[in-house]
Amino acid sequence: MKIPRSHPRYESLVRREQLVRAWKEGIVAPEGLIAHGRGEAWDYLFGEGTSAPALVAERAAAAYLVSARRPVISVNGNVAALGGRDVVQLAKAIPARIEVNLFHRSEDRVKRIVRLLERFGAKDVLGLRPNARIPGLASRRALSHREGIFSADVVLVPLEDGDRAEALARMKKTVISIDLNPLSRTSQRSTIPVVDELSRALKNIEKFVKELRSDPKEVARLRRGYARADNLRAVYSFLQWRLDRLRRGVPARSRPGRKRASLRKT
Amino acid sequence: MKIPRSHPRYESLVRREQLVRAWKEGIVAPEGLIAHGRGEAWDYLFGEGTSAPALVAERAAAAYLVSARRPVISVNGNVAALGGRDVVQLAKAIPARIEVNLFHRSEDRVKRIVRLLERFGAKDVLGLRPNARIPGLASRRALSHREGIFSADVVLVPLEDGDRAEALARMKKTVISIDLNPLSRTSQRSTIPVVDELSRALKNIEKFVKELRSDPKEVARLRRGYARADNLRAVYSFLQWRLDRLRRGVPARSRPGRKRASLRKT
Repeated sequence: MKIPRSHPRYESLVRREQLVRAWKEGIVAPEGLIAHGRGEAWDYLFGEGTSAPALVAERAAAAYLVSARRPVISVNGNVAALGGRDVVQLAKAIPARIEVNLFHRSEDRVKRIVRLLERFGAKDVLGLRPNARIPGLASRRALSHREGIFSADVVLVPLEDGDRAEALARMKKTVISIDLNPLSRTSQRSTIPVVDELSRALKNIEKFVKELRSDPKEVARLRRGYARADNLRAVYSFLQWRLDRLRRGVPARSRPGRKRASLRKT
Repeated sequence: MKIPRSHPRYESLVRREQLVRAWKEGIVAPEGLIAHGRGEAWDYLFGEGTSAPALVAERAAAAYLVSARRPVISVNGNVAALGGRDVVQLAKAIPARIEVNLFHRSEDRVKRIVRLLERFGAKDVLGLRPNARIPGLASRRALSHREGIFSADVVLVPLEDGDRAEALARMKKTVISIDLNPLSRTSQRSTIPVVDELSRALKNIEKFVKELRSDPKEVARLRRGYARADNLRAVYSFLQWRLDRLRRGVPARSRPGRKRASLRKT
């Protein structure tokens, strides 16, 4: 189905098609489709744009990533399908290693994801031969690489499962999550919860990384200044403001240069 | 995977497994998995329980169904998978006809769903040999039965697509939707939007149908008294109250007799 660019929810519908395609190619698990739907609903509530508090968290995330000794980006099926190219660009900008980590792990799916990332220009992607275990996680979900997530000081975990985010935080790593649900266990347990859509978040963080690479003073200031609890509170306030607008019948989203969005099925 | 009954989000996780199973059996479309995820996120926000305004809408829905001349319940893949048994019970209680209507229609999937409903005791399920078209809908999405939805005066459309809900409303039918998103086009365009989880809504409506069957005076009172706009406003207010609680760290949900729910991944 061809979606017209003028459609008020163009990006969201393109993402949905991208994901179904990746699922047909064996990159995304069926549970990944359900998880994506949850993200769609949240993003709809947020107006399908980056909120001001999300931008603050993304800038703090960039500061932690550029000053890390061993930064690693964790990639699962949904991340590869919806932000594979963005992950590779961000990894180059930092620079950081990439490790494929699947909740519903199969060797076949790991291989497909590694190949996809390599097609986007990634090098030395980890994930195929795990040689360490994250403590406190059951079975195959604990698998990791000593050169990757296991020894990382800063881990970026987009669309992560709550158990893993929590286990990584227990290992005293700086855990940066990207998750549209501010109430999820992932957002609750990570060091820097970025409450934004995957691809928007990755692109913003990359932009900030490039700005901050040559500005250690600003990096230090951002690291000191970021206040997790205040930031999450600002996210909730933003959501309440959105709900109030929606209740009063203000269009679900309106962006400059766009057609007024009518109230659409999520 | 065995989910322990004590899990604070037991019902939601069981539903998810049910749906993935039905998808493997060819009853649910991949897009149905994504749609379910959206529902999960909304239900999480609602606290995974029926709100007071939803209960009011369910009672009004029951009043319209028992007093209908030709009531019909529309069933798609997700409805069959998650509420097949409830639909059949409700259809018997009214009594109403059942018609299978798929957004991503395939003859094979219609057959599987009809068989599933028959296994739950349904008789004369429509959907396999459509002989009419709903005006204003493209291609196969318009297909319907003259003895079913096409001539119905009251249609119950659980988890319906916005285009179809709108087209049915244009035909001057009383359209009762069940949809957890109060902002969806389906909720916006239906005559009686029930903003509640499918299975809870079906069970509640069935209970009310049984109470109202022998009480025409109360039925008339409910039909007069139901105010759509006020009811939706009450739903939004409820959501804002929930968000405020969540923001202040009150548990995501707490029901009598249950373990306190911790903040969980949606």
